[in-house]
Amino acid sequence: MQSLIVKKFGGTSVGTLERIRIVADQLIQTKQAEEKLVVVVSAMSGETDRLLNLAYELCPNPSAREIAAMITTGEQVSAALLAMALCEKGMPAKSFNAAQLSILTDAELPTKARITKISAEKISAALANNQILVVTGFQGVTESGDITALGRGGSDTSAVALACALSADECQIYTDVDGIYTADPRLVPNAYRVEQIPFAAMMTLAKLGSKVLQWRSVALAGKYQIPLRVLSSFKEGKGTLMHYDQAQIESAKFSGLSHQMGLTRWIIKIKNPQGNELSLLAESLAQQQVLLESIHQTQIHHAAEISLLFSREENAQATVLLNTLCEQHHWSCEAQHGFARISLVGIGLSSNPEVAASFFAALSQLNIPIQETLYSELSLSAIIPDSELPQAARALHKIFFESSI
Amino acid sequence: MQSLIVKKFGGTSVGTLERIRIVADQLIQTKQAEEKLVVVVSAMSGETDRLLNLAYELCPNPSAREIAAMITTGEQVSAALLAMALCEKGMPAKSFNAAQLSILTDAELPTKARITKISAEKISAALANNQILVVTGFQGVTESGDITALGRGGSDTSAVALACALSADECQIYTDVDGIYTADPRLVPNAYRVEQIPFAAMMTLAKLGSKVLQWRSVALAGKYQIPLRVLSSFKEGKGTLMHYDQAQIESAKFSGLSHQMGLTRWIIKIKNPQGNELSLLAESLAQQQVLLESIHQTQIHHAAEISLLFSREENAQATVLLNTLCEQHHWSCEAQHGFARISLVGIGLSSNPEVAASFFAALSQLNIPIQETLYSELSLSAIIPDSELPQAARALHKIFFESSI
Repeated sequence: MQSLIVKKFGGTSVGTLERIRIVADQLIQTKQAEEKLVVVVSAMSGETDRLLNLAYELCPNPSAREIAAMITTGEQVSAALLAMALCEKGMPAKSFNAAQLSILTDAELPTKARITKISAEKISAALANNQILVVTGFQGVTESGDITALGRGGSDTSAVALACALSADECQIYTDVDGIYTADPRLVPNAYRVEQIPFAAMMTLAKLGSKVLQWRSVALAGKYQIPLRVLSSFKEGKGTLMHYDQAQIESAKFSGLSHQMGLTRWIIKIKNPQGNELSLLAESLAQQQVLLESIHQTQIHHAAEISLLFSREENAQATVLLNTLCEQHHWSCEAQHGFARISLVGIGLSSNPEVAASFFAALSQLNIPIQETLYSELSLSAIIPDSELPQAARALHKIFFESSI
Repeated sequence: MQSLIVKKFGGTSVGTLERIRIVADQLIQTKQAEEKLVVVVSAMSGETDRLLNLAYELCPNPSAREIAAMITTGEQVSAALLAMALCEKGMPAKSFNAAQLSILTDAELPTKARITKISAEKISAALANNQILVVTGFQGVTESGDITALGRGGSDTSAVALACALSADECQIYTDVDGIYTADPRLVPNAYRVEQIPFAAMMTLAKLGSKVLQWRSVALAGKYQIPLRVLSSFKEGKGTLMHYDQAQIESAKFSGLSHQMGLTRWIIKIKNPQGNELSLLAESLAQQQVLLESIHQTQIHHAAEISLLFSREENAQATVLLNTLCEQHHWSCEAQHGFARISLVGIGLSSNPEVAASFFAALSQLNIPIQETLYSELSLSAIIPDSELPQAARALHKIFFESSI
């Protein structure tokens, strides 16, 4: 049987012509004779931002339909360049965009579209003659033919969605790191790469700030049980494989430390709450697809306090939305900036009270003020000041990942 | 009845965000309430070259299919930006690319494709609600969905082809000059703008080097008798209208001086010619769509000499082709660079021998060596050294265009 592999190269992997040549060489060297290869590429690094800046310099509130049509051109350029480089080296290859392959998305939010359908037939036809398919990541097209973008990091989603549609044998995400680490090595020098990671842990890591994989693409891979591998396009190695092996999952314990900086906490104070405030907020945010990191409500007598946590990327949109809502309903609100979340990810954390005890003890020994704690079956997090993050991460890594070495 | 106007803005007209804002303002100010407007845009100036340079830096002989897919992205960016700017100013507008509007082309030469069909229905539907359609120039798509480019200056062709498909009332080409001049004002300071120009003369001017309009688009407009107007996007004015009025054509005489620099002359010497050499050369050039400026054969006893003239743009491709052919057939060949063609364009030139006499007298008085002469019903040309062009142009303009002022 022929195997089918989907490989995705991000913006830095195709960031220069020299890098594109290297990727072409790698593909030619590693392609098995009978292997079918679909390669998804992002725009050359910096290109999407260059285009976005053009748009926002032109007008403060550009049409989302036009933004999508414009910012997805960067992928078409890098896809064509990679196909050229492959052809030049004697490997038949063709570039395709989302419209050409009918990568269909919904139409509500043109710059944060979600893939609804991919025609496997079109792609299978294009895969004939043993040629490599180079596909624009990040792009989609609506039923009516409008161009859409999948949102930041959407090329990962493109790759995983293609792998699912084609029932690929493996989806390989090439990045600038050589796998999943127990913590961010820039923050924790002793962090080390893991060979394999269970799906649930990977999902949690991505949700809690690991930048290596987008959680949407992890979730999608999980839905179809596609083996997903993260590896480096700059150095050789087997990377980290995300697996669905129940036996291994049960024996696993801690998978890694994850963190996210630049969080903003919103505190909303409501007098005489009606009881529907939480759902009102959650719905308004969902309508605009503003991603919320967490939401908590505390109620004391005739007043309620709701705290919400947003990443730096989402906070601009959240600010507009929350200010409008609070004005409408006469709620008072306040934004507090400069928070980080440090999270321990692992299977069965809540069934082990000692883990939480060690976690909080480590932070309190360093006199780090904890603003909030978040606890689930798969993770244990603390919201702390940005400035305290490095020492917190190193201390927690030492306790949970270095003791058994 | 609603009128329908197609307007085309070139690369310098949309070269900066400031320029795009100005174009948006102009469109809003001049759009009649009941007028339907299709606006065709080129890439922001320099963008197509930037992309081409990327490709040729990556590989010396890139796939034409990929070049076409890549270099047409510039138009998508400028179309989206203009649509955004219009929306921002309260004028409903949407950008569309060639695939979205089914602007079909042939598939033989992906970077020099020719439009074969445009679906007027798709465009009419998109023109509903009084919104402005902003269309990517230069782009096409094949029946099988591959992206094609129409060749340099192809945005003019896009505009004229759309005007034909939609039976537009007028096709307006906005450029950096405010109309058609009796000669290039940079070369001839006394040159002046003409209000109207007959189709045949415009066609000839374009063929003979006038850069204002691409001759392919002039020919297309003529085929469907679309009134074509050249005007400036930088200053107000009525520009120059190309018309099909037979009565006016008959009374017209000289329309202008046209010139082209940087020509290369190839001299091919053939011993014992078979008689099919001319057609062999012409066919080979046509197959690669290399545009020939002229071809001449002289035969003396058992030897033939063929001289061919190429523009700077075409000469690179011509060189490869001619060298191959000459080696194959054991012909000797030689390239002579640095020629210019100066042409007088007007109706009924050949029926007036005095015109030719004055033309050659002017050049001989200046001691300008004439390499070759070309003569037709509509034009009279001399091939002279590049360096002699300015004084030749000024002298001829004085005789034919300044005496009656």
